[in-house]
Amino acid sequence: MYRLYHYPICPLSRTIRVLLTEKKLSFYPVIEIFWERREKYVRLNPMANVPLLVAKPNLVIADIYAIIEFLEEEHQDIVLIHGSPQEKAEIRRVMAWFNNKFYNEVVGLILNEKIYNFFKSGTDADHKLLTVARQNLAYHMRYLQFLLSRRNWIAGNEMSLADIAVACQLSSLDYLGEINWNNYPVAKDWYAIIKSRPSFRDILQDMLSGFRPAAHYRELDF
Amino acid sequence: MYRLYHYPICPLSRTIRVLLTEKKLSFYPVIEIFWERREKYVRLNPMANVPLLVAKPNLVIADIYAIIEFLEEEHQDIVLIHGSPQEKAEIRRVMAWFNNKFYNEVVGLILNEKIYNFFKSGTDADHKLLTVARQNLAYHMRYLQFLLSRRNWIAGNEMSLADIAVACQLSSLDYLGEINWNNYPVAKDWYAIIKSRPSFRDILQDMLSGFRPAAHYRELDF
Repeated sequence: MYRLYHYPICPLSRTIRVLLTEKKLSFYPVIEIFWERREKYVRLNPMANVPLLVAKPNLVIADIYAIIEFLEEEHQDIVLIHGSPQEKAEIRRVMAWFNNKFYNEVVGLILNEKIYNFFKSGTDADHKLLTVARQNLAYHMRYLQFLLSRRNWIAGNEMSLADIAVACQLSSLDYLGEINWNNYPVAKDWYAIIKSRPSFRDILQDMLSGFRPAAHYRELDF
Repeated sequence: MYRLYHYPICPLSRTIRVLLTEKKLSFYPVIEIFWERREKYVRLNPMANVPLLVAKPNLVIADIYAIIEFLEEEHQDIVLIHGSPQEKAEIRRVMAWFNNKFYNEVVGLILNEKIYNFFKSGTDADHKLLTVARQNLAYHMRYLQFLLSRRNWIAGNEMSLADIAVACQLSSLDYLGEINWNNYPVAKDWYAIIKSRPSFRDILQDMLSGFRPAAHYRELDF
């Protein structure tokens, strides 16, 4: 059985939690306060980031991209990067866009300012940085609406891992009440469907002490 | 035959140029001044970034990660993500670290300040940003030395795509004279070997008008 080191609100961790569940793979989740750089954890994963997937003592996989490709290669009964070469490439392109660019320009900034820095040092959020992140969010949300207006799902006409990855990024922001869904009706309809999947039940139950989720966070009909 | 839209000093473009050559795939290179957002190019690739691989009119692949996985899946005679599941995961982890984190914290900043902003608007580099990027560079170079001191190659005991990807990132900095190799003897020895590969000949001949490469850039014995 897999062991997954994760942090509840981390969108990359959430993607792997949902992916494991979609693939019907059981796993033992371990919450890792990664910024504390716990000695045993650093020995396992020198970069001390999350998520980290441990398959066996000598099979330890770090990095979201490496974990995704590993699970897709090892467990081919249910694959979430599927279709023609062009369709697979589009799934990977969209995932990379949101896991890298959207994370760096929006989600990572907001999590750092609102959550991680607070737990690390008790400091208040830098409102200038939050403003920048929120402006970037509006830009990326328009891109998301553009993608969804041309297709049934984010990366094509079938649901894929791109939908899961992007929904996980948004779910972290949604916990913090950062998304005004009324501005994004197309994205809202899509998110409502993804959010209703049984594989999402677990992350909707996440609770971060000191941070109550936004009122609608758990509602499937929001 | 593939068409590859690239920009000469872009390290992600370089990785694909070298990968195609290592795989003995012929391709037609097209230099794309991506920041000009040429209308025809934006139609092909709405994000207007490089590299972009065009296989057929209806097979257009954007994003470094999507291109790499596409080429590895389609052309399995010579694979550069190889070995056991753990070895493949380590190759992908190291590539992602350097293509995302190292690029965002070092190479991207330096290229923006020294090259792209100059061509876009003629502005001089922001020396504060360059100082931050150079401090980050020293940190990542120590990490590279750490990896190379434990193994024959960056991600294991065989040469892999991780070596190519990291060497391409460093080659862009080296063109600009940003790496003091004497401080990094282990990395220097490794880079000298990679640089001597026939697949690197082409990128060592790159010429950016207005920016002469550092004196040792093309020397195999530097």
